[in-house]
Amino acid sequence: MPKQPLAPFFNPKGIAVIGASREPVKLGYGLARNLLQSGYPGKVHLVNPRGGELFGLPLYKTILEVPDPVDLVVLLTAAPTIPDLLETCAKRGIKAAIIASGGFRETGSEGAALEARCVGIAQQYGMRFIGPNCIGLIDTHLPLDTTFLPPPGPMKGDIAFISHSGAICAAVIDWVRGQGFGLSSLVSLGNQADVNETDVLGAIADNPKTTVIMLYMESVSNGRRFMEQARQVSRMKPVIALKVGRSESGQRAAASHTGALTGSETAFDAALKKVGVLRAATTEEMFQWARTLAWCPLPKGDRVAILTNAGGPGVTAADAAENEELELAEFSPHTLAGLKQFLPPAASFHNPLDMLASASPEHYAQSLTLLLDDPGVDSVLVIAPPPPMFSAGAVAKAIIPVIQGANKPVVVALMGDKLIQEAVEHLRAVHIPEFRFPEPAMSALAVLSRRRAILAFLEHTPTRAKATNKRKANAILKDVPPGMLASQNTSRLLESYGIPCVHASLAPDAQEAVHMAEQTGYPVVIKVASPDISHKSDVGGVMLNLKDSQSVSAGFDQVVSNAKNACPGARIDGVIVQRMLPVGQEVILGVVRDAQFGPLVMFGSGGIEVEGLKDLAFALAPLTYQEADSLLENTWAGRKLKGFRNILPADREAVLDALIRLAQLAYDFPQIAEIEINPLLVASQGVFAVDVRVRLSGS
Amino acid sequence: MPKQPLAPFFNPKGIAVIGASREPVKLGYGLARNLLQSGYPGKVHLVNPRGGELFGLPLYKTILEVPDPVDLVVLLTAAPTIPDLLETCAKRGIKAAIIASGGFRETGSEGAALEARCVGIAQQYGMRFIGPNCIGLIDTHLPLDTTFLPPPGPMKGDIAFISHSGAICAAVIDWVRGQGFGLSSLVSLGNQADVNETDVLGAIADNPKTTVIMLYMESVSNGRRFMEQARQVSRMKPVIALKVGRSESGQRAAASHTGALTGSETAFDAALKKVGVLRAATTEEMFQWARTLAWCPLPKGDRVAILTNAGGPGVTAADAAENEELELAEFSPHTLAGLKQFLPPAASFHNPLDMLASASPEHYAQSLTLLLDDPGVDSVLVIAPPPPMFSAGAVAKAIIPVIQGANKPVVVALMGDKLIQEAVEHLRAVHIPEFRFPEPAMSALAVLSRRRAILAFLEHTPTRAKATNKRKANAILKDVPPGMLASQNTSRLLESYGIPCVHASLAPDAQEAVHMAEQTGYPVVIKVASPDISHKSDVGGVMLNLKDSQSVSAGFDQVVSNAKNACPGARIDGVIVQRMLPVGQEVILGVVRDAQFGPLVMFGSGGIEVEGLKDLAFALAPLTYQEADSLLENTWAGRKLKGFRNILPADREAVLDALIRLAQLAYDFPQIAEIEINPLLVASQGVFAVDVRVRLSGS
Repeated sequence: MPKQPLAPFFNPKGIAVIGASREPVKLGYGLARNLLQSGYPGKVHLVNPRGGELFGLPLYKTILEVPDPVDLVVLLTAAPTIPDLLETCAKRGIKAAIIASGGFRETGSEGAALEARCVGIAQQYGMRFIGPNCIGLIDTHLPLDTTFLPPPGPMKGDIAFISHSGAICAAVIDWVRGQGFGLSSLVSLGNQADVNETDVLGAIADNPKTTVIMLYMESVSNGRRFMEQARQVSRMKPVIALKVGRSESGQRAAASHTGALTGSETAFDAALKKVGVLRAATTEEMFQWARTLAWCPLPKGDRVAILTNAGGPGVTAADAAENEELELAEFSPHTLAGLKQFLPPAASFHNPLDMLASASPEHYAQSLTLLLDDPGVDSVLVIAPPPPMFSAGAVAKAIIPVIQGANKPVVVALMGDKLIQEAVEHLRAVHIPEFRFPEPAMSALAVLSRRRAILAFLEHTPTRAKATNKRKANAILKDVPPGMLASQNTSRLLESYGIPCVHASLAPDAQEAVHMAEQTGYPVVIKVASPDISHKSDVGGVMLNLKDSQSVSAGFDQVVSNAKNACPGARIDGVIVQRMLPVGQEVILGVVRDAQFGPLVMFGSGGIEVEGLKDLAFALAPLTYQEADSLLENTWAGRKLKGFRNILPADREAVLDALIRLAQLAYDFPQIAEIEINPLLVASQGVFAVDVRVRLSGS
Repeated sequence: MPKQPLAPFFNPKGIAVIGASREPVKLGYGLARNLLQSGYPGKVHLVNPRGGELFGLPLYKTILEVPDPVDLVVLLTAAPTIPDLLETCAKRGIKAAIIASGGFRETGSEGAALEARCVGIAQQYGMRFIGPNCIGLIDTHLPLDTTFLPPPGPMKGDIAFISHSGAICAAVIDWVRGQGFGLSSLVSLGNQADVNETDVLGAIADNPKTTVIMLYMESVSNGRRFMEQARQVSRMKPVIALKVGRSESGQRAAASHTGALTGSETAFDAALKKVGVLRAATTEEMFQWARTLAWCPLPKGDRVAILTNAGGPGVTAADAAENEELELAEFSPHTLAGLKQFLPPAASFHNPLDMLASASPEHYAQSLTLLLDDPGVDSVLVIAPPPPMFSAGAVAKAIIPVIQGANKPVVVALMGDKLIQEAVEHLRAVHIPEFRFPEPAMSALAVLSRRRAILAFLEHTPTRAKATNKRKANAILKDVPPGMLASQNTSRLLESYGIPCVHASLAPDAQEAVHMAEQTGYPVVIKVASPDISHKSDVGGVMLNLKDSQSVSAGFDQVVSNAKNACPGARIDGVIVQRMLPVGQEVILGVVRDAQFGPLVMFGSGGIEVEGLKDLAFALAPLTYQEADSLLENTWAGRKLKGFRNILPADREAVLDALIRLAQLAYDFPQIAEIEINPLLVASQGVFAVDVRVRLSGS
């Protein structure tokens, strides 16, 4: 049965609160108060079995007494009472509930049983519920506030906050208010027995009042579904995630380097990247990014201008730009000529533009105008330590109309505290992001650039690799028990998806050797096959670069006779025939199935040192050409495919192709738990999987 | 002539201000006002050629009229007037001046000439001066304030701030005050025509009121002198540097990988590390670290306990601990038993300790007491989002006596804004560091651990490598022109310092071949020497593993005759005799001379890919055993010397020895610009420098 949509949560006609309390110390009192004071335009009904009145409204003894319409019920009574109350609500036809009460799964098995009952009731009646053990939700525009948090609530704004942690909501509301910005909505998810982060992400994204979404995540309910939803949302609105809680184990038994090197964190990171979600490193960063994305236009490029009245912070900002991989803009002659007309000659006329300490508010405004007019400038960071001769407030007032008149992003580093407070307030009032230090200001400009790149990146969708023989691969994998795939089948499997492999086959006689050579393709190498001879080349048991059937046939006789002469007693089984490999570079390709996000592809420097060097990059299957390309660009193994000093260039395109095919193979066959190609030999033309391991899982 | 000490700046008997102004818009007015209002206990005299009165004091027309004693003069008149005024002061016997005026080197060649005149005058009269183009200095304890910045100045505190940038001083004073902490002193260095950061660092460190020193650096005046001074100070007091301004060029012509891979940033970083200076990444981090180091005791170890009333921020803090390489403490059974007596059963009793949202101030205090009593806990991070049922202020009041009674560091993450303001003020009043988010709070605990490690690290001093023959090395290098050292001399040079090299020598006849083999040591390899034969092994021209004189003698005849038979017309010069190298690992060792900090040693993965892989670590010469060891530990090339999977362990101690010897060699001979050993072969016993290049500079 498809789940009901979440509309009743976000635009309910009528709300009832079960557990509204007349005692001010109780959370049920705060909840009723917040809901009534929120300005919610529909009817609010309060329920308490003891009856009476609260805030001038009657306290109904049961939900059955409450008049229609009631789209949403908020429950805040003792956990053991919840399932029955929920069922009563469901029977009455209410389709949405918020269970704010704690005492469920988070407290142990008894609570878990209560929670399971709630889930059963919801399924039975087609009801949806948020929680239990949550703070509820806030919509500042509807408006609506079902929380019991102490007032004041958040101001109106355009940023939504969706949180696995209820406890941080109060802190967030308070902090955000102190920072002078508002929220469009806030949803606390609690135990997610029914509604989860993915459901809410979709619902919140539909709200036109929300322009940026912040996700505080401790886990994901269904990795692939989350990715689908998040990708869809990211194409419309920036999504910023703070993912907390790293896997501490990460020590799972692994059959390959790839397995040992990927943990759920790597997969989570790859998932967020693939769907265009910005991953913040810290709580504060998430908020600062959100505010900047909500308030600024996106830049056209990565060229930043820095405008300052002081050298030191200008240099700090330039360092930060380098860290954030932004470019320092070069000013046009026209811009420079303009600046020189009013700035003192001792000013520094390259980027950072240092107007010197004497800079007036007008200097700031005029300089900023010129910088924003320069076609070589994509964004501007304005730095204002308290100017010695003027007030920072006057600087802010002077630059605001300039910023508002431009369609390029401008952020301001106002350094100080009391001396810049007035300036802070001016800027906040008109939604220009301000920071206390140049570094976070530059990080904010960088996130705008990254958002621009994400929008371009999301234009690409994986196209199926061509000439992949799914039927053949299926035949190879069919009915194979879990465990390592037999080596003769690994090559066949990879080749069914167009990844060339190196074959080594035993030929008992010369005729068979020629046959194998024909199959493998010339030139070939032959080596005597004997369990008793270890140094085969020492006994003349190896012949390289045989180019035709005649050489192979003659070669067979030669190496066998050489070996017999050198080691008279040795058993000789024939010769191993193998394609003569060209010289080339060696890389590792791997894929391992993540429980949440599916096949995670790895690329990098291979060999036995892969786990030590950690020259590796990861992406989730299936891969676009662009994703495969960035796996190469993000590793030394990939970068040197273009050649480096006396390392010759190798067939980079063939590696990209092999990566895309490998990803497709793992994506098509869920029973593939791991594949590792180590090494993949990359010649000047073509690639060869030299050593391949495939592990199948039980599923 | 040794320079005069700086005491007159920091404890002057009598100060005169030249350029004191009666016009409130002038900086000379602000300067006089600040100095008089600062509470400076000595006499203040104001000088202005126009005469009159200011703040009830006479305005002397010249410094010559000012009565004794005058130890320090502050000059704030137009730049062209400064040299003459300075000379007048010097002649009057004043030994210290602060030139606050701008208009010197920073404005071009005319200003530079004025500045040079000031330097000449100071040298002539044995005077010292700070500036020009600076803000002056503040001492909140003496007290003394020679700046013209708008009041209020900083509060009394224990942190000193030394800055190359004058412009950020106003911002710093304002911001620090807003953060609720004070400064002991502030020194703006300006153009550093005379007094520089190193001079001031020493002088400030001597002040017992200063317990932590912050350095805002844009450059260094003399690298080695700075290192010496900073190391001395670091052993007494924490020094935190924010170094801004990265070298953009870094593209200097280099004769080796080492040269290409080291820039002045690498050297700066290595220098700060070597002398125990903490390098902050951002401006804000510098301040937060300083406050924490000033207010907290150092922990005994790296085991952190996290105490929270909310899961989410607890997990965030645990992630941050992992990032900062701190350990999460394990609580003792005694601690756990104690906690279980009063916390609800649903609380989370491992680390992070989550007391749940119901936690009262008493729960915080009791839990914190138990955690601090646990011998397995070295430090504690307390997290307090606004507790739903209690005030954050009450939590702060409850935990303060517990923290004050313990000798372990405790920092507090108070999440929110208005709701936690009271708590913030309580904590600041008693010097307990508080933060808005768990991440910077954890970073602060980490810096305490790092400071502890630094104190241990600074106990070690480099000991001269034994058996280094400086006389022999000197003979090799004497009178050699700049450029690459001839290859026969590179081996002799390295061996004079005890680094074993691989020799390859040409023996024209069998007797000579034996002689060379005896010198090189058995076993040896011989190869036919012929300009006409490229694939020597193909013609039987190579013999491996010859173990005695007889084999070498016979081998000579054999390879020569083989070569003659195979290539009848080839010229044959004899054989190359070379030590037979054991199997082993290969690493790169290098050293390149930094203009400021001297020889910078590099260690890592060698080969031709060294510049791509960047598996490298750096340290300045001379090296302690501990520093050499950490070069190994910080690279994969070094870590795998202990063995990894099927890579056999190699002679790690011999590598450490070679590193120390190489560093000593470069340190002893300033004419050595670069040495690169690539590779150094590391066998199971011993190391061999296989390929060595030495470049000498002109000096």
